[in-house]
Amino acid sequence: MAPGLVFAPVVDGQPAAKSVLPEGSFPTGNELISKHDIVLKTFRLLIADLCEQFKGGHPGGAIGMAAIGVALWRYVMQYAPHTPDFFNRDRFVLSNGHTCLFQYTFLHLTGYKAMNFDQLKSYHSQRTDSLCPGHPEIEIEGIEVTTGPLGQGVANSVGLAMASKHLGTKFNRPGFPVVSNHIWCMIGDACLQEGVALEAISFAGHLRLNNLTIIYDNNQITCDGSVDLTNTEDVNAKMRACGWDVIDVEDANFEVMAIVEALEKAKSSAHKPTFINCRTVIGLGSAVAGQAQAHGAAFGEKDVEAMKTAAGFDPKQKFVVPDVVREFFADLPERGQKIVEQWNDLVKRYATEYPSLAAEFQSRFRGELPSNWEDLVPNSFPEKPTPSRASSGLVLNPIAKNVDAFMVGTADLSPSVHMTWPGKVDFQHPDLRTSCGINGDYTGRYIHYGVREHAMCAISNGLAAYAPNTIIPVTSSFFMFYLYAAPAVRMGALQRLQVIHAATHDSIGMGEDGPTHQPIELATLYRAMPNLLYIRPADSEETAGAWITAIKAKNTPSIISTSRHAVPQLKQTRREKVALGAYVLEEVDDEKPDLTLIGVGAELSHALAVAENLRRDRNLRVRVVSFPCWRLFEQQPVEYKRSVLKRHLSIPAVAIEPYAPNGWERYANAAASMTRFGHSLPGTAAYKYFGFDVDGLTVKVGNYLDAIERDPVLRTEFVEL
Amino acid sequence: MAPGLVFAPVVDGQPAAKSVLPEGSFPTGNELISKHDIVLKTFRLLIADLCEQFKGGHPGGAIGMAAIGVALWRYVMQYAPHTPDFFNRDRFVLSNGHTCLFQYTFLHLTGYKAMNFDQLKSYHSQRTDSLCPGHPEIEIEGIEVTTGPLGQGVANSVGLAMASKHLGTKFNRPGFPVVSNHIWCMIGDACLQEGVALEAISFAGHLRLNNLTIIYDNNQITCDGSVDLTNTEDVNAKMRACGWDVIDVEDANFEVMAIVEALEKAKSSAHKPTFINCRTVIGLGSAVAGQAQAHGAAFGEKDVEAMKTAAGFDPKQKFVVPDVVREFFADLPERGQKIVEQWNDLVKRYATEYPSLAAEFQSRFRGELPSNWEDLVPNSFPEKPTPSRASSGLVLNPIAKNVDAFMVGTADLSPSVHMTWPGKVDFQHPDLRTSCGINGDYTGRYIHYGVREHAMCAISNGLAAYAPNTIIPVTSSFFMFYLYAAPAVRMGALQRLQVIHAATHDSIGMGEDGPTHQPIELATLYRAMPNLLYIRPADSEETAGAWITAIKAKNTPSIISTSRHAVPQLKQTRREKVALGAYVLEEVDDEKPDLTLIGVGAELSHALAVAENLRRDRNLRVRVVSFPCWRLFEQQPVEYKRSVLKRHLSIPAVAIEPYAPNGWERYANAAASMTRFGHSLPGTAAYKYFGFDVDGLTVKVGNYLDAIERDPVLRTEFVEL
Repeated sequence: MAPGLVFAPVVDGQPAAKSVLPEGSFPTGNELISKHDIVLKTFRLLIADLCEQFKGGHPGGAIGMAAIGVALWRYVMQYAPHTPDFFNRDRFVLSNGHTCLFQYTFLHLTGYKAMNFDQLKSYHSQRTDSLCPGHPEIEIEGIEVTTGPLGQGVANSVGLAMASKHLGTKFNRPGFPVVSNHIWCMIGDACLQEGVALEAISFAGHLRLNNLTIIYDNNQITCDGSVDLTNTEDVNAKMRACGWDVIDVEDANFEVMAIVEALEKAKSSAHKPTFINCRTVIGLGSAVAGQAQAHGAAFGEKDVEAMKTAAGFDPKQKFVVPDVVREFFADLPERGQKIVEQWNDLVKRYATEYPSLAAEFQSRFRGELPSNWEDLVPNSFPEKPTPSRASSGLVLNPIAKNVDAFMVGTADLSPSVHMTWPGKVDFQHPDLRTSCGINGDYTGRYIHYGVREHAMCAISNGLAAYAPNTIIPVTSSFFMFYLYAAPAVRMGALQRLQVIHAATHDSIGMGEDGPTHQPIELATLYRAMPNLLYIRPADSEETAGAWITAIKAKNTPSIISTSRHAVPQLKQTRREKVALGAYVLEEVDDEKPDLTLIGVGAELSHALAVAENLRRDRNLRVRVVSFPCWRLFEQQPVEYKRSVLKRHLSIPAVAIEPYAPNGWERYANAAASMTRFGHSLPGTAAYKYFGFDVDGLTVKVGNYLDAIERDPVLRTEFVEL
Repeated sequence: MAPGLVFAPVVDGQPAAKSVLPEGSFPTGNELISKHDIVLKTFRLLIADLCEQFKGGHPGGAIGMAAIGVALWRYVMQYAPHTPDFFNRDRFVLSNGHTCLFQYTFLHLTGYKAMNFDQLKSYHSQRTDSLCPGHPEIEIEGIEVTTGPLGQGVANSVGLAMASKHLGTKFNRPGFPVVSNHIWCMIGDACLQEGVALEAISFAGHLRLNNLTIIYDNNQITCDGSVDLTNTEDVNAKMRACGWDVIDVEDANFEVMAIVEALEKAKSSAHKPTFINCRTVIGLGSAVAGQAQAHGAAFGEKDVEAMKTAAGFDPKQKFVVPDVVREFFADLPERGQKIVEQWNDLVKRYATEYPSLAAEFQSRFRGELPSNWEDLVPNSFPEKPTPSRASSGLVLNPIAKNVDAFMVGTADLSPSVHMTWPGKVDFQHPDLRTSCGINGDYTGRYIHYGVREHAMCAISNGLAAYAPNTIIPVTSSFFMFYLYAAPAVRMGALQRLQVIHAATHDSIGMGEDGPTHQPIELATLYRAMPNLLYIRPADSEETAGAWITAIKAKNTPSIISTSRHAVPQLKQTRREKVALGAYVLEEVDDEKPDLTLIGVGAELSHALAVAENLRRDRNLRVRVVSFPCWRLFEQQPVEYKRSVLKRHLSIPAVAIEPYAPNGWERYANAAASMTRFGHSLPGTAAYKYFGFDVDGLTVKVGNYLDAIERDPVLRTEFVEL
């Protein structure tokens, strides 16, 4: 727009007056460029104003990406602002989540109803119902996944793209592309440095996900300064090496149609995911443009006024959205509804042509499981000692085989985690022919993630976020390596996504692999993590209960934590009790028992044997409690909890678990626990070395009872045995 | 060796008889190849036997890498088996740590004294003093870092290479290359899939660490099958894009001298780190050669016998090491001692030429700090409210500036973490000229790691492992992102490496960035992690205590957890008390106080204010305890602990901390805590939203006291307020 050009602005989102932009005042023959110019200026000044009001936030990236946003929301993305959850919409992920104002502002301009102007202005305010938190959150209309921790969004996008490929390949028929959306992932320089993104990029290239586009906001700035302080690699060459197509956009600050062209090209990619390298300037137009200072602080009133003056805006007016800008986006809700109607029509015709497939499709996108899924769980299990990882397989394999919602993956531990089933088909690109004889198929539901635990879990969040419960992703690895994946597991819990993590080799009983593989303290994290079920079943029966509970937890991820080694099958365990978190396994018919022993998972049988020893040797009245899940127990009524623990009757309780004791203090007076790292020894020897064999435990518990007898003050304190 | 060739073996490591290999029986004109042949066969059969004895372990990779090991230990690496800690030795890191028998066997053959034949045979045994754990451990002679969790070793190697570059550039003088070693890192296919390795590879390329070589055991097999199941990228192109030289070795199964040539070329690289892509066959010679089955299980007696027969060995004899093989390695200890003597001589002459530099060098490699380092900590601090992250800077900056042992880095959060000091020099390659005006210098001690939290901490482990306490690495980021880095922080704790992590933005008080950035449950992990100090200081004075404690903890990593927002400077805090873990801040001169309030970190001032309110409004006798570190408190005598908490006197204690409550049960009867994720709000508003403002807390604590009055059973249970 020519400087000095007069137009009547809207103030605070309300039209002040009809636009007086004289017709033909745009540069001749190039109306579009002028329209883009005023849209970009408006957008950028709006971002500056939004950060200015509470003197904080992240203006720079959002401002730099303005033209990319126009290209996406105005021209390329298929979506419906008034039907935000339309199933076949394109998915947009803002991996550089701190630039959230970018997305919020486009949601506002394109007509998402929830994102009204008041809401947009609530960014960084004290409004507790703000739809503009510091990073995008999945609960908000138009937001596909919660992002913020860098790199996660890249992996989420890979999961979304896999979900779309999988469902599309399964349900589409010639002339009926019922699942045909594209996944757009916006990233900044930092996302390309995070390991989780690098893992996911490598994997997406392998899978040849041509429905995935990463748009790289290449402004060469991070918090510390220019990117060449820390990263001087040839990014394009790296992406090509990873199996991606690369498109350069030399000027992504202004050249909206060049970006559109790149996006369209990406969308029609035949064989590969696409990486669009967009050169932008962070904080464009501000005094700190192109500098790190533009990243995470408001520009200051003076600078913002100068920006406005330079752009031909009134420097004193704030939150100005000229009519012409409103008009530029005005038809998008209607366009969106047309897309929805066309798709609804397509699905209607599809239902006529393929009635049973369509019924299945509808059921899947309603997130339904077959009503008889629970019948697939075996009623009984072999009585011989069984590793509980194998029990996990016995429980899940028939479900995974028969219920298409399950997509089961592993971080390269198929032989160890027991998650494969006879006849399983791998999820792979159809052209893949591996040297071990696999032919690719996108309808496959078993995923070899490679040794990429973090990406596995972050990708699974994407699979789950595609549509509520349409896909139930299962991941698997050794429990210890869920520390690698922890940031993604956390994001799943935060987003209330149902992902089930089959974690094997828990406890020191896993043996020879030693302290690097023995998860002493990890359960402590997952028991403390909100909205996550960490379940440690004791045998096959409890493993059945664990999976049933996890599958019923529609808005909560679970970790089912199992043993490498064989554990005895116990007569007293009950699958339906797992959902209670803890339950009495052996009761004492007596008003005043001497002791409650708490056992968990692979060591529950140890607790039972210790109880037996104490009854025999010391004539004690010992109760035994099985305690597979703290969080489920906490959800029970206080009466139930007291009936299980009886601590209100001053009966001492001792927990037995070769984990860090932290938190057991709530349920027990003492614990046989691990306060140091483990040791490389065969499982049985490791138990013995740390005094977790039955004899060692019997002595420890006996000594404790003697000690509290001698010194009652110890009853007021938690004791590590 | 020609089949059927007769030679007298040694059995169980003891020479049975002098070798009767007839002279000249090696193929004419190619004695070396024949020697290598028998060495390789012996080595491979030994690995097979070692796995066979307890029917377990990882034979395949070690067998495949045999020729690489011969090239390294026989020809290329500079080391001294009888002086294993020789300062200027090359460092070898086995990132694919499950192939540990590879390293143990070469340590044995090359004459490391601790690794005698009995020890070698203890792999997977029940020996609790075995030097052959399931993964290499740093405590063992000849092992540089503990590895196992994949990818960590790559990042450790980058740290070791940085340490060598840094110390070399600082201390070397023309003709006096006192620090001039090379870092060799062995990796498998899986390491190249792990994000932490990918982060570190990108960073090493940026730093142009020409003293670093990665040797890639490219056998194209992982647990699940062929690598092309999960990874089909162009690895060489990717490494070149990351700034590495790439050398291919087409046959690394047998061609020892081709490998030697590649290693020597890598060692003389002028400008870049080198990636040697070695094609090998996993489990070479076994029936499962080239297959995933060769990875993690013994081959079985029959197969091992067949291998021996094919190799011309007696199929019934085990652990055979022919004299010719012993002789092949026999001179290495002596060669090593010569290297040590030459270096000692060099250092002696260096001390004459550069006496003060040499004195400093000696002091550094003894791990000494200047005796007055503690004087650098300010005696007092500004009285105005100060973010404790800024306090961290006030404490550490003068130390970092003046004490060369400190190398301080950040994952791209320099403006936020306060870890820079005036005049700091960045650690960068000398040829680097960044667009933000930095000229590179390897003597620099400030490290911009990029947004690579996991690699930052794993690299820091390498910096610390270079020589005990010669370098004290400091890392910095938001506390929440230490979840990304957790596997590396854990490895530091396991290895007893002094690394100090400056974690800022702890607590919900960090505000607008919202739940993705608010570390609700993370402290729970770090408080449970063995051998780690998680310290949350309340103000500048306690921050001083935290750093002093962390710097004195020579064998323990620490996390110093600070606030984003300003916190009041408290009159009652004492730096020297931080080392006690907890201490009484306000006592009640009374036998029977009504309540102990426990405050921590940024919310300690809240606890003090609540105490004041309760005294004023309810006339209660309230004690206040500051509790910066659980682990330090646990190390105190029981009398001290009781004097602080007085729980044995049945005085109720309430902890105030906006974290998951798990573990507070040990010290308190109730806690104002967080059992859900946070919320994006300005810090003060976030406190209020969750009832952590002083008024909200006063009500909560008061209600609790009323409740236990009404229902004394509640005193037997932990209550979440």
